[in-house]
Amino acid sequence: MEKLTIVKVGGNVINNAEALESFLTDFAALEGNKILVHGGGKRATQLAGDLGIEAKMVNGRRVTDEATIEIVTMVYAGLLNKNIVATLQSKNCNALGLSGADGNSIQAHKRVVVDVDYGFAGDVDGINAENIATFINGGMTPVFCAITHDGKGQLLNTNADTIASTIAVGMSKLYDVSLVYTFEKNGVLTSVEDDDSVITDINSEKYAQLKADGIIADGMLPKMENCFNALQQGVSEVIIGNPTVIKNKEQLFTTLTL
Amino acid sequence: MEKLTIVKVGGNVINNAEALESFLTDFAALEGNKILVHGGGKRATQLAGDLGIEAKMVNGRRVTDEATIEIVTMVYAGLLNKNIVATLQSKNCNALGLSGADGNSIQAHKRVVVDVDYGFAGDVDGINAENIATFINGGMTPVFCAITHDGKGQLLNTNADTIASTIAVGMSKLYDVSLVYTFEKNGVLTSVEDDDSVITDINSEKYAQLKADGIIADGMLPKMENCFNALQQGVSEVIIGNPTVIKNKEQLFTTLTL
Repeated sequence: MEKLTIVKVGGNVINNAEALESFLTDFAALEGNKILVHGGGKRATQLAGDLGIEAKMVNGRRVTDEATIEIVTMVYAGLLNKNIVATLQSKNCNALGLSGADGNSIQAHKRVVVDVDYGFAGDVDGINAENIATFINGGMTPVFCAITHDGKGQLLNTNADTIASTIAVGMSKLYDVSLVYTFEKNGVLTSVEDDDSVITDINSEKYAQLKADGIIADGMLPKMENCFNALQQGVSEVIIGNPTVIKNKEQLFTTLTL
Repeated sequence: MEKLTIVKVGGNVINNAEALESFLTDFAALEGNKILVHGGGKRATQLAGDLGIEAKMVNGRRVTDEATIEIVTMVYAGLLNKNIVATLQSKNCNALGLSGADGNSIQAHKRVVVDVDYGFAGDVDGINAENIATFINGGMTPVFCAITHDGKGQLLNTNADTIASTIAVGMSKLYDVSLVYTFEKNGVLTSVEDDDSVITDINSEKYAQLKADGIIADGMLPKMENCFNALQQGVSEVIIGNPTVIKNKEQLFTTLTL
């Protein structure tokens, strides 16, 4: 199986023009088959503010009403995605910007209303691995924003971390997949305040121990569950580190394996 | 050579939700290889107005300043393109939304400043026919918005009619191309006020005569020059008609051939 690297980059990089430029230089230089998944950043919130649209929050989560799905479609699939693609093109990376609707790449459904109606928020069902492989075999690098669709004409706002792991799982049928989550820390830390306290290797057994010891807790738990789910469904490894990890492997980062 | 139909749809349809839905139903049902090129419509102007950004016009043409290229990228490549793609997907058309930056599909350069600086307005240089053919051979239907790039990381605002003819010329090396311009009239008319006065067939000789007689004049002249240029560069036929022409050939429309 050929190798495929899937990199997720988040708002912390997207929000900083210099950091984004530097990250895209590194990503363009990354060898082999690759896919980029990018988050949203603060620009959508800014645009909503400029237009006088108030963010609706329920239980700390944003509700994607009709005005909001329009704004995130404009900002994520339009402004951010196309500027990232144009920048990568200038760095000799033949990038192809995609939402989940394009080539029916990512299928999702509107989140089922239990207690709260989150509006046009999408929960991912699966991907079209053959179409995505068509792009890669054609020498292109797919660049996904976090917008999906329900197959009935409705665009949906979706979590970028989930998109990255769903693509990783789906593509692991065709490729030996390495999934790289970049974020503001150097990796999974034993002490949140100490960015040098990176746990370099975590397997299922060690993860169970770290959970039992309370070292991995709170907000890190759902992220780790998501990663181990991906590993159990065929992804070869998950790497967690700061954005420079895609270029420089001589630094601290965390590798998750089964 | 296999047949390829390239359809351009403009703002008059984009601005009307019902007309757009109806047009996309017809486009989805169109058999064989196909590409859609869509214009912008009034939504970008509305958004600019809502954000208090004034349209700068010089000689009746809009100047694309930094704020404006952001807005058209959001509206054309984001909101409009992705909603058109999602709607086509719901109608069993495997649409793939593209700007010229995606897959380096359309190369352009910033319009050269002679007397007027039109800002981030793009003049098209060429297309990447092989990449576009990769999408078509993969069973997908490319849907282009009128945003291109300069290969140096800059997105550019480009005329959708020109994009349609440039794609048609570029793809005519690989396909037998029919280029369909839809607009608010039934075709090229002998009398602008009479929508039934359609000239059904125009070849180069007849075109020269119609020009000499002053029947084709003013705003129609550059459009026709654009069409005959496309024919001279390998496009098999250009059809000009109202948006229903892609479904119903039992009505009046104009066919241009060399």
